[in-house]
Amino acid sequence: MPLTAPLRGVVPPVCTPLDATGEVDTASLSRLVEHLIGGGVHGLFALGSTSEVAYLTDTQRRTALDTVVRTAAGRVPVLAGVIDTTTPRVIDHARVAAEAGADAIVATAPFYTRTHPKEIAGHFRRIRSSVDLPLFAYDLPVSVHTKLSASLVHALAEDGTLAGLKDSSGDEGGLRRLIVEFGGRDGRAEGPAPRFSILTGSELTVDAALLAGADGVVPGIGNVDPAAYVRLYEAARAGDWALAAKEQERLVELFALVDAGPDADMGRSSSALGAFKGALKLLGLIDCGDTAFPQIQLDTRSLALVDQRLRAAGLTPVR
Amino acid sequence: MPLTAPLRGVVPPVCTPLDATGEVDTASLSRLVEHLIGGGVHGLFALGSTSEVAYLTDTQRRTALDTVVRTAAGRVPVLAGVIDTTTPRVIDHARVAAEAGADAIVATAPFYTRTHPKEIAGHFRRIRSSVDLPLFAYDLPVSVHTKLSASLVHALAEDGTLAGLKDSSGDEGGLRRLIVEFGGRDGRAEGPAPRFSILTGSELTVDAALLAGADGVVPGIGNVDPAAYVRLYEAARAGDWALAAKEQERLVELFALVDAGPDADMGRSSSALGAFKGALKLLGLIDCGDTAFPQIQLDTRSLALVDQRLRAAGLTPVR
Amino acid sequence: MPLTAPLRGVVPPVCTPLDATGEVDTASLSRLVEHLIGGGVHGLFALGSTSEVAYLTDTQRRTALDTVVRTAAGRVPVLAGVIDTTTPRVIDHARVAAEAGADAIVATAPFYTRTHPKEIAGHFRRIRSSVDLPLFAYDLPVSVHTKLSASLVHALAEDGTLAGLKDSSGDEGGLRRLIVEFGGRDGRAEGPAPRFSILTGSELTVDAALLAGADGVVPGIGNVDPAAYVRLYEAARAGDWALAAKEQERLVELFALVDAGPDADMGRSSSALGAFKGALKLLGLIDCGDTAFPQIQLDTRSLALVDQRLRAAGLTPVR
Amino acid sequence: MPLTAPLRGVVPPVCTPLDATGEVDTASLSRLVEHLIGGGVHGLFALGSTSEVAYLTDTQRRTALDTVVRTAAGRVPVLAGVIDTTTPRVIDHARVAAEAGADAIVATAPFYTRTHPKEIAGHFRRIRSSVDLPLFAYDLPVSVHTKLSASLVHALAEDGTLAGLKDSSGDEGGLRRLIVEFGGRDGRAEGPAPRFSILTGSELTVDAALLAGADGVVPGIGNVDPAAYVRLYEAARAGDWALAAKEQERLVELFALVDAGPDADMGRSSSALGAFKGALKLLGLIDCGDTAFPQIQLDTRSLALVDQRLRAAGLTPVR
Repeated sequence: MPLTAPLRGVVPPVCTPLDATGEVDTASLSRLVEHLIGGGVHGLFALGSTSEVAYLTDTQRRTALDTVVRTAAGRVPVLAGVIDTTTPRVIDHARVAAEAGADAIVATAPFYTRTHPKEIAGHFRRIRSSVDLPLFAYDLPVSVHTKLSASLVHALAEDGTLAGLKDSSGDEGGLRRLIVEFGGRDGRAEGPAPRFSILTGSELTVDAALLAGADGVVPGIGNVDPAAYVRLYEAARAGDWALAAKEQERLVELFALVDAGPDADMGRSSSALGAFKGALKLLGLIDCGDTAFPQIQLDTRSLALVDQRLRAAGLTPVR
Repeated sequence: MPLTAPLRGVVPPVCTPLDATGEVDTASLSRLVEHLIGGGVHGLFALGSTSEVAYLTDTQRRTALDTVVRTAAGRVPVLAGVIDTTTPRVIDHARVAAEAGADAIVATAPFYTRTHPKEIAGHFRRIRSSVDLPLFAYDLPVSVHTKLSASLVHALAEDGTLAGLKDSSGDEGGLRRLIVEFGGRDGRAEGPAPRFSILTGSELTVDAALLAGADGVVPGIGNVDPAAYVRLYEAARAGDWALAAKEQERLVELFALVDAGPDADMGRSSSALGAFKGALKLLGLIDCGDTAFPQIQLDTRSLALVDQRLRAAGLTPVR
Repeated sequence: MPLTAPLRGVVPPVCTPLDATGEVDTASLSRLVEHLIGGGVHGLFALGSTSEVAYLTDTQRRTALDTVVRTAAGRVPVLAGVIDTTTPRVIDHARVAAEAGADAIVATAPFYTRTHPKEIAGHFRRIRSSVDLPLFAYDLPVSVHTKLSASLVHALAEDGTLAGLKDSSGDEGGLRRLIVEFGGRDGRAEGPAPRFSILTGSELTVDAALLAGADGVVPGIGNVDPAAYVRLYEAARAGDWALAAKEQERLVELFALVDAGPDADMGRSSSALGAFKGALKLLGLIDCGDTAFPQIQLDTRSLALVDQRLRAAGLTPVR
Repeated sequence: MPLTAPLRGVVPPVCTPLDATGEVDTASLSRLVEHLIGGGVHGLFALGSTSEVAYLTDTQRRTALDTVVRTAAGRVPVLAGVIDTTTPRVIDHARVAAEAGADAIVATAPFYTRTHPKEIAGHFRRIRSSVDLPLFAYDLPVSVHTKLSASLVHALAEDGTLAGLKDSSGDEGGLRRLIVEFGGRDGRAEGPAPRFSILTGSELTVDAALLAGADGVVPGIGNVDPAAYVRLYEAARAGDWALAAKEQERLVELFALVDAGPDADMGRSSSALGAFKGALKLLGLIDCGDTAFPQIQLDTRSLALVDQRLRAAGLTPVR
C-alpha cells in the first residue's frame, strides 16, 4: 500500500514472536499482524526497537519483515526499520526492505560513533537517494545518544529527504516547537512540508501529542491493545479530548505492566519487552513469550503481575 | 495568603530585576509583581531558577523575597525557593523564608553531592519538620542531576511531607503515570493525597498537562505574558481544549525569543533569562534587563530579535 | 604560610568531624590536622568535597576553617574551598576565607546553572579580582557537570588568574595533554606559567600523575594514611617509580574501604565519606564517625569491613 | 599465530584504508600492516573502532580482515573486532572471524539496547561458547554507553570466558583497582586468572598503565608511529620510566593532530580518524586518506596542520 499521503493514525511497532530456540515464529507473527489490523490500526512498523530489531540477525530480520508484509497484504502500509550503526550498513538493510516490499523505511542517526549534525544530514540524504522509498527519521536518543535537532528535521523535510518523523525523544516541548514551526495544528496543510508525518513514540501522552497537532502514534503497548489506541485516535479526531484523555489514562494504567520484572535481575528494556510478549502470550496471540538472548526472561511472579494488569484493563487472558 | 487548599492555576517564577551594579531593583520587582497579579495569576514563585536564585547572595535573596511578599500583600500566595546543596543549608533558607512571610517553600533534592533515594526522602522530611510551611518538591534534573522517582513523590505525598510537586523534569510520560497513580484526572479528589498540587514547569505543553490532570503551571515566560497563561488555564478549566491549544501555540511562538542569544558566545540558560528580562524591559516593566554575573548579556542584535518576537505576539514594546 | 612558590606535594582535603548533634567537633578536627601534619603533608585543603563542604552551613564552614587555620599555625599552607553555585555567592565565601587567614582559595565552575566557557572564564577572573589570595580551579565534573577545557585553564594560567588546578575530572589523558602544553615534565619551569601548580585528585593513580609531571595530589584517603602518600611522593621525587607504584598499590587496596556501605541503602558518596570517617574513628583520631545529614550512616557490618581493610593495610584500630 | 600465552605489548587497531569510491583498498591495507609489523608491534587489532568497523558493510569487514590476516601471515596474532548490537548479531561476525583465521575476537557489551549486568555476562558467555577463539572484552562506554564493572570482568576472567580486556573506558582509577584485584603489578602471574591480558586503549597514558601493571596498549595513533609505542613499551619493560615518560610525551604532542578538523563542521571522531588517515597518506603508506561516509573529510588547511604535527615529531611526509 504505497504511501501517497502523509501517514496518520496508529502504527504499532510490531513485536517479533520467537520460538523456544530463538527463531522467528512466523505463525505467531501472522496472528499478531491480524490482531493489529483487526484492531483498526492504520499502519505497521516492522523491525523497530520494540520488534527487538537490535537482537535479530539479518536472516531473522528478513523473515520477520517478509511475514509482516505478506500478512498485511496491502491492507495497511508497512514501515520497515533499517537500524544499523552507519550509512553503508543502513543502506544494505534498506535495499532488503525495498526488495521485501516495505512501503517506507525508518532510520535513526548513526550510533556507536559520534557524529556531527552535518554528517547526520548527509546520512539521511544518502539513504534516501539509495532506495526509492519514503524515509522516516527515528529520533531515539535513549538508544542512539544523539537528539535530532528541530532545524535538522526541518531542513530534511523541506528538501524532500524525509517523509516523516518518529519522535521517541521524550522531549515533548521540542516536539511542540517543531509542530509550530511546521505550521501548527491548523496550518500544517499549507506548511513548507505539507506531506510530512509527525508520529510520536511517547505512548503515554498520545492525547497531548494529537492535541498539539501530531499525526499519529507508534505505541509499543499497541501490540497488546491496538483497538484502544484506535479509539483514542478517533476521539481526538472528533475533538472529544475528554474521551481521548480517558482512553489514554486507561492505557497508562495498562502500561504499568512494563515494570513487572524485578529491578535487581533484569534490565528495564527486557522487562518492558518481556511484559509485552508475556501479555500477547496470555491473550493467546503468540505461542511463546520469550524475548531474544541475552535478555533475561520474566519469571512466574512477574507474569502473574502482567496477568493482573491485563484483567484490570478488561483484557481477558485465555491461558 | 495561607495555602488552605491545593494550589491551582498559573504561578510564574518571578524574575529578579537587577540594577546596573547587580543589586536587586526593588522598584522594578514591585512593578513586575503588579504586572503578574494584574494578569490574573494564581500565585507567585519567588527565588526559583528563573529568578536567578543561584546567582543571588543570601542578602539579595532576602531583599527579593521581601519585595515579592510585601507587594503581593496577601492577594495571591507566595512560594519561596530554598535552593541549596543539602539539607542543613536548605533549612537555613527555609527559616528565612518563613520569617519573610512566604506561604510555602520549594526545595530540590540535594545537588553537587550524589545522593541515594533514601537520603533524598530524609532530606525532604527533615526540611518539612524544620519549618511550619507547606513544602513543594522541585524536580529539576537539568540542574540537580537527580530525577525524583514517582514512588518517592508518592510516599512523601502520602505521609504529608509534600504539599505538591513542581515538575520541570521534562518527563511528561512519567508525570502522566504519577497523575494516574494519584487517582487520574477525575479521581484525584478522593485520592490518597487529596490536597497534593501537581504543577508543571514544562511551559510549552501546558494544555497537555492540564488535559492530563495537572493543577497548574509555573511558566518562565509567564513573566512576559501572564494573561495568556491565565487564558490558557481558563480555557482548559472550561474544557475548551482547542482554545487552550491555540493559546499554547501562540506562547510557543513567543517562547522562541529564548534563542535570541548567539550560541557561540553565551549559554542557553543565559540567553533565555536575558531574553525574558530583555522583553520585560522592552515592555517597560523593569528598568534594566541585565542578568546576574557571570552571565553574558544579550547584544543589540539579540534584543532586536526579542523585540520582533514580542511584536509578532501582539505585545507592544514601549522602549 | 603564604604561597610564594607553586604548591607541591601531598595536600589532603581535610575531613570535617561532626559530633552527634551534627555540629563541627573542633577538638577532633584539631587532632586530625595534627595527624596530617605529623604525617608529613605539604598543605591542607579545608572545605573541599571530602570535607563535606556541601553539607555545612556558613557558620559551620567558618568554624571548620578557623580550626584548620589555627591548628596549622603556619606550618603548612591552608587552601580553603569556596564552593557555591555562582560568582556572587562564591565571592561571599572567598571574603570569609581571606578573613579567616586561608593561604589560597579553591573554586569550581558555576553549578546548578548551565554556563558557557566564556562565562566560566569571567567567573574565575571576577573571583580572583575580588580577593587577594591565590586561586585554584577545582575541576570536578561529577559534582559540577562541566569539564574545564585545557584551553580555558591555559588562558587563565597565562593571565595570572589561576595559581593552580585541582584536577578531579578523572580524565587522565586530558591532564597529560595539559601538562605537555604547560611544558611537559621537564620543561615546566620555563613554561608560560612557571608557578602554576597541577594537583591531581585521582588518588588511585598518583604515581602515574607524578610520572607525567603533576606537582602533587589531593587524596581523600590521605586523611587515613597521610604518611603513605608522603612516601609515595618522596619515592616519585627520587625517581624510584617501582617503589612509588608499590606504595600506590597498597593505597589502592586500602581505598577499597569506600565500598563498605551497602549499595541498596546508601549513596556511593555517603559510603566513601562514611568509610573515611569511620576509619578515622577506629584509629582514635576523631570521636564520632558520623557524616552530615541526610547521608545515611554505615552500619556495624560495614564498619567491620572498614576495620578489616585498615588491619590489612597495617593500620591498627584502637577502638 | 595462536595465542598460547597472554597477549602483551603494542597491538594497534589497524586503520582501514578506503579508495575514492569508499571500498577497502587492500593494497594500502597490506602496506599499512607491513609498516606496523616493521615497527615491531606485538599484535594487530583489525575491525576495531579506529578501523571504522561501524562504517563497514559485512562484505567490507570480511575483505579488511582477510587482508590483515593474509598479510600478517602468522608473524603476529590478529585480533578481530566483532562489533554489533547484541549477541546473535555478534556471533554471526564471530563465526566469520574464525573462518577468516583470526587468532582472537574482541566484543563489546550490547549497545543500542539497555542491558543489565547479568545480561551482559550472558552475552559474553554465549559468544565464547559459540566460537572456539580467545575472547577479549572491549570496554568502550563512549560508544556502548555501558561501563563493564570490575566485578563482571573479574567473574568472566575467572570462569575462563575472557582471555583479556581492552579498556578504553578512560577510567584509569578503575583500571588500577582491577589490576590490583588481579594480583597487582608483581603478583598477577599467580593470580586467579594468570593468563588474562589487560590492554589499555588510553593511548596518552600508556607509561602510567604499564607502571600500574597493564600488559599492553591498543593505540590508534600507533598506526602513524608504531615504533614509538614499541620504544615506550620496551623502556617500561626495562624499568626505565623516565624514558618511557619521555616517549609518551612525544606521542602526546603528536596526538594533537586529532584536533586538526574544525569543530564547527565535523565531529571529533571524524577529525581524529581523518587525521590518522591523513597522516598515513602524507607518510606514503596509504593511497587515499578518506574516511568512510557520512564522515566529513579534513580540508586542506586541516591536513596542513597534520603535516606540521608530523614534522614536529620528526616524521617526514613524502607527499
